[in-house]
Amino acid sequence: MPKKIRLGILGGGGDSLIGILHRVAAQINDNYELVGAVFSSNFEKNKAFAQALNMPLERIYEDFKMFVEEEMKLPESERIRVCAVLTPNYLHHQMALELFEKGFHVICEKPLTTSLEKAKALQKAHKKAGTVFALTHTYTGYPMVRQMREMIKSGALGKIHKVDVVYYQGWVNTVIHDEDKRSSVWRLDPEKAGISSCMGDIGVHAFNMLEYTTGLKVKSVLSDFNFLYQDNTMDLDGTVLIRLGDYAKGVVRASQIATGEENGLAISIYGEKAAFRWEQEKPNFLYLLSDSLPTQVYKPGHTYNSELSLDGTKLPAGHPEGIFDAMANIYKGVAKAVRGQKYNDGEFPTMLDGVRGMNFIEATVASHRGGNVWVDLE
Amino acid sequence: MPKKIRLGILGGGGDSLIGILHRVAAQINDNYELVGAVFSSNFEKNKAFAQALNMPLERIYEDFKMFVEEEMKLPESERIRVCAVLTPNYLHHQMALELFEKGFHVICEKPLTTSLEKAKALQKAHKKAGTVFALTHTYTGYPMVRQMREMIKSGALGKIHKVDVVYYQGWVNTVIHDEDKRSSVWRLDPEKAGISSCMGDIGVHAFNMLEYTTGLKVKSVLSDFNFLYQDNTMDLDGTVLIRLGDYAKGVVRASQIATGEENGLAISIYGEKAAFRWEQEKPNFLYLLSDSLPTQVYKPGHTYNSELSLDGTKLPAGHPEGIFDAMANIYKGVAKAVRGQKYNDGEFPTMLDGVRGMNFIEATVASHRGGNVWVDLE
Amino acid sequence: MPKKIRLGILGGGGDSLIGILHRVAAQINDNYELVGAVFSSNFEKNKAFAQALNMPLERIYEDFKMFVEEEMKLPESERIRVCAVLTPNYLHHQMALELFEKGFHVICEKPLTTSLEKAKALQKAHKKAGTVFALTHTYTGYPMVRQMREMIKSGALGKIHKVDVVYYQGWVNTVIHDEDKRSSVWRLDPEKAGISSCMGDIGVHAFNMLEYTTGLKVKSVLSDFNFLYQDNTMDLDGTVLIRLGDYAKGVVRASQIATGEENGLAISIYGEKAAFRWEQEKPNFLYLLSDSLPTQVYKPGHTYNSELSLDGTKLPAGHPEGIFDAMANIYKGVAKAVRGQKYNDGEFPTMLDGVRGMNFIEATVASHRGGNVWVDLE
Amino acid sequence: MPKKIRLGILGGGGDSLIGILHRVAAQINDNYELVGAVFSSNFEKNKAFAQALNMPLERIYEDFKMFVEEEMKLPESERIRVCAVLTPNYLHHQMALELFEKGFHVICEKPLTTSLEKAKALQKAHKKAGTVFALTHTYTGYPMVRQMREMIKSGALGKIHKVDVVYYQGWVNTVIHDEDKRSSVWRLDPEKAGISSCMGDIGVHAFNMLEYTTGLKVKSVLSDFNFLYQDNTMDLDGTVLIRLGDYAKGVVRASQIATGEENGLAISIYGEKAAFRWEQEKPNFLYLLSDSLPTQVYKPGHTYNSELSLDGTKLPAGHPEGIFDAMANIYKGVAKAVRGQKYNDGEFPTMLDGVRGMNFIEATVASHRGGNVWVDLE
Repeated sequence: MPKKIRLGILGGGGDSLIGILHRVAAQINDNYELVGAVFSSNFEKNKAFAQALNMPLERIYEDFKMFVEEEMKLPESERIRVCAVLTPNYLHHQMALELFEKGFHVICEKPLTTSLEKAKALQKAHKKAGTVFALTHTYTGYPMVRQMREMIKSGALGKIHKVDVVYYQGWVNTVIHDEDKRSSVWRLDPEKAGISSCMGDIGVHAFNMLEYTTGLKVKSVLSDFNFLYQDNTMDLDGTVLIRLGDYAKGVVRASQIATGEENGLAISIYGEKAAFRWEQEKPNFLYLLSDSLPTQVYKPGHTYNSELSLDGTKLPAGHPEGIFDAMANIYKGVAKAVRGQKYNDGEFPTMLDGVRGMNFIEATVASHRGGNVWVDLE
Repeated sequence: MPKKIRLGILGGGGDSLIGILHRVAAQINDNYELVGAVFSSNFEKNKAFAQALNMPLERIYEDFKMFVEEEMKLPESERIRVCAVLTPNYLHHQMALELFEKGFHVICEKPLTTSLEKAKALQKAHKKAGTVFALTHTYTGYPMVRQMREMIKSGALGKIHKVDVVYYQGWVNTVIHDEDKRSSVWRLDPEKAGISSCMGDIGVHAFNMLEYTTGLKVKSVLSDFNFLYQDNTMDLDGTVLIRLGDYAKGVVRASQIATGEENGLAISIYGEKAAFRWEQEKPNFLYLLSDSLPTQVYKPGHTYNSELSLDGTKLPAGHPEGIFDAMANIYKGVAKAVRGQKYNDGEFPTMLDGVRGMNFIEATVASHRGGNVWVDLE
Repeated sequence: MPKKIRLGILGGGGDSLIGILHRVAAQINDNYELVGAVFSSNFEKNKAFAQALNMPLERIYEDFKMFVEEEMKLPESERIRVCAVLTPNYLHHQMALELFEKGFHVICEKPLTTSLEKAKALQKAHKKAGTVFALTHTYTGYPMVRQMREMIKSGALGKIHKVDVVYYQGWVNTVIHDEDKRSSVWRLDPEKAGISSCMGDIGVHAFNMLEYTTGLKVKSVLSDFNFLYQDNTMDLDGTVLIRLGDYAKGVVRASQIATGEENGLAISIYGEKAAFRWEQEKPNFLYLLSDSLPTQVYKPGHTYNSELSLDGTKLPAGHPEGIFDAMANIYKGVAKAVRGQKYNDGEFPTMLDGVRGMNFIEATVASHRGGNVWVDLE
Repeated sequence: MPKKIRLGILGGGGDSLIGILHRVAAQINDNYELVGAVFSSNFEKNKAFAQALNMPLERIYEDFKMFVEEEMKLPESERIRVCAVLTPNYLHHQMALELFEKGFHVICEKPLTTSLEKAKALQKAHKKAGTVFALTHTYTGYPMVRQMREMIKSGALGKIHKVDVVYYQGWVNTVIHDEDKRSSVWRLDPEKAGISSCMGDIGVHAFNMLEYTTGLKVKSVLSDFNFLYQDNTMDLDGTVLIRLGDYAKGVVRASQIATGEENGLAISIYGEKAAFRWEQEKPNFLYLLSDSLPTQVYKPGHTYNSELSLDGTKLPAGHPEGIFDAMANIYKGVAKAVRGQKYNDGEFPTMLDGVRGMNFIEATVASHRGGNVWVDLE
């Protein structure tokens, strides 16, 4: 019988998006147990964060070195088995190398590292280690993305001749036009973020989506970037012409200055028989276009979906998976109340809501039974 | 410093939607620790399910009676503090009464119980107990639902004169037209589901949404139901005329035979100054309509939202909260791999994806730097 | 070989929506020629309006009586054959009776007249006359509405058990809350508008849509209206419970105080096999829902559509029919220029746009041919 | 007082989209009167088509030469003033030159001609002639496109840094994969269609939309095309990198092999302060995006729109302009009936619909007045 897998997290402290995303995701299918971490390079912050997560401090380590040393002293039956590497990009390489060597499984945030050369070194080390490695191109986990992949694999589109992927965000627009602001953003500092801002952070997601869904490999690229200001050395926006072989072509568009765009990842894939269209901001709707038939809208959880897609759906059709969060918000309010903390009216439905509900149900039944008459609620 | 709150679950075993929803939600904000349960009235199934969740069996109890007795023997510092009641509707009443009496906090699935009379008895007992009680009208946890409530409270719509709420599902259509099938569905058996199927299960959500968002109270109702077949005694569909006082009127529509509808909960609220429109299947989009200005689209996570709404948002704007699930699917695939179980290609991005990504980033940079020339990927 | 049909118009002068709608519609398929009219009861306004339409004044008559008398003096080969009756509702009855008697074909705006009794008298007179009569429930002319009708007729939905139609507008909200304003609106004056404002003006469209698409007949209704203020005697909003026989039920919702709604006519039809959903504000998208298959989106102009639908489509798929208006706007700008009237830059594309376009085409070709190099435009 | 402007049409016979578009557009605002034409180079077809349009044959000319000669013989007060040139691209040049010389105003289909050189010759001739010339980039006539232009002009977006325009169609996919089919399509024959298929036909629309809305000029382009098959010499798909100066960049994407796409013209314009998004297939919705405020949805006909936009709107808000076509379909059905031609049930609403409508209105009023009781329809 499977026990929970012991998980360690490196990085992802504070209110980073990535941190909460990995912690929640690790819990959702009841597979992992978070037992140790180095959330921050600042030990005080590290411990404080662990406490905020209600974690015991025994396995909250001072740094990565100690993390590895101490865990290796534990018997294998207690040792962390999977490490999630959520640190800045430039640290991925050394950490993953060390973790491979010691036999840990690794879940690593993208991009893999800061250069192709280092990436290949990692690839080699991983091959030698033989442990599990996963790179969190999160968007490939959506049920309808998986459905695209499986249907393409089984020929639903025919031979593909064109792919168009876009990933537009607008957040850099809020800092780039002020010289002081833009010089203080770490993503725009090549020391910290590597050779690329826009391509490195989000263009690579679009690229991965393209190869993941189509099963095709990009053969060559031609790109044009925009930097807007001369004192800015990092790409903020770029269009990449794509060749997928002699036949198929495509385009990858990415931007961090697409004003007002939030997280606009979308893909269109055109084949001889049909086409797919999918948008990350409405992830439960997958469109199958055809020249001669009505467009079909695929949604998660239906039996018409592939096994891979269904394996990634936990709820009946029509429940946006964000419903977990709606429920979580109610639990959050209750936790405040239980702990005697201040909370707002409206954070969770109360006894009164329950009484009102029963009143409503009985009144509607009485109205219908009475011959469609008006019935007052109390 | 807050510790995790000890949680017990009653019901919700097997693959019930409600079970997974509560377990995941309880984990999302790092507030709860699931320590005990009676997942099923069948003890073997109960234990097997706990094991599937990787829970220790010590506090997996044979039945509700033993759950309460054994927990009460524990010192308060170890005892379960919050109980989630996910059992069939007719059991809510007795369980909640007992839990109130013993001082447990209670999170209870809707509807509260099976009659207004019992609901009031619960209300009384709860008042006496003074513990926390929450009814899981989950949809009120959505950030944009909370935003509606807060903006209405602060006068954004002016005086409200009309409310229109709908909750349409289609699933009963798949069983109702076959006499054998329909007689074997528990929701259509008044013994098990109470006096109402459609109103009791989903109409009550629509009603709650109406009162939650508007702050208004329904004064009287006039309803008409559809049963379709004479041997079916449970409402499958109903329209309810609503009076909210002398001025405002409304309508609640609910159906379980709205063929092809999935989970179509939606609300429109019309006031003298403006109106709101929101749909559960696209929960991140809230529309503010006006007679004289462009429609405004509110989305979660922006600073223009109310405190109550922002408190329920964990991610930057543009991330559908379902992204947790996308990430969870990747963790799920890794768990299979770590455990040596069979998994499909495509369940998580691999080292190769990381290498390809670096290759892409470097190639696009090289292309741009080279004067927009074609650069091959390896 | 068919000649154009001589058309006369009664009412519809000034900037009435109805007037322009009929005139344009009459021209679109090259079938009609507008030769005579009484646009207004004020003869000066009548003539001025005719001149504004560039019509000769010979057959612009002083009133309806003269219209009929003078036209009847003309030989049949010159006489108006079809009369469009666009006058206020209370005039429809007498005009149509007279026109039937004299052998004219009649196109009449809805509602037919001001009471069921008068409606039946008209029905009788029409039967006797044997001429063509059409009531302009315009929305039934949309290609996708026709497609619904035809597919339902051929069994695509199976037996229908539920229908939900809505027609929400918000314009009365802008006048109703001011006592002076509301007392001066003709639609809220029962003398002028008949017994009903909301049902009479738009509820009846929703009703017609229901019967047109489903082929079912409404058997009985139960309604509730809202008047908002005691000194207002006309319904502004209403919900109507519908029975379509022993089996199927439905609801018609209509409102003129649905703040911010523009022309929100929509219909959902649920049958045992499938369901339809259609919205007037996005008239080219027809959704076919199913419990077990992906939703299908039907659009105009495709060969998969019925003959009736295709007969109503003049353009290739993907051209919203509003494109006629886009082109008309360009022609309008040219007319201003030709007549030496003032017009704005941007009213029509100029020679310079043409030169730029050629420049663009040649430059893109040169860039590609040159091996994807940058090519400047002039 | 303005009279209708005499219009002549060259080309556009048969069932060409372009023909009907120009004829209808010319009628919509009551400005033009179609008096002469050469619809086809085949005189018999030409005359037959004119008859089908119910036009007298006196000014249906054998060819362009005769068209000009005969019209010039007429006194100016009868002569055609505006000529619409809808012939194949390669004929535009000679016709427009001749028409300019003789003093006609010209409305010409795009692209202007077949080479930049010829375009400039035309430009020169036009300047000399001093008549009105309009190129029908139809999409610039949409009210919301005009609204974009005016708001950008008045600074709503701030300085623009990125533009993304797309025009995707799929129709070539249905012919290109069959060697025989593709060799017989005139658009893929450089003799007939010029140097470019995809860019020449639709890319140029996207380009024009970019310059029209932004007021910016494209400085240089870098393009990559796809031809799919070696025996095909015409571009079917292309991506064009755009530079608009030192600061702003952009991309134009166009395709005729985007399987299942119908007429997918769309534009996004990103400025420092805000951004616009608009799609041709839903032309009444214009989105204004911002980093810090809710998205605003502009729609036609509201007073918040610019004068240029409002000048192009004929109907109240909420009426898709395609409603003209819905009404036109009803008039078409009536014409069939009047002429004694076969027509289908459902082509226009009948007397019975009118009687039913009155019955419905009276019944709903009676139900409400009777205290919300059921009232039967007859």
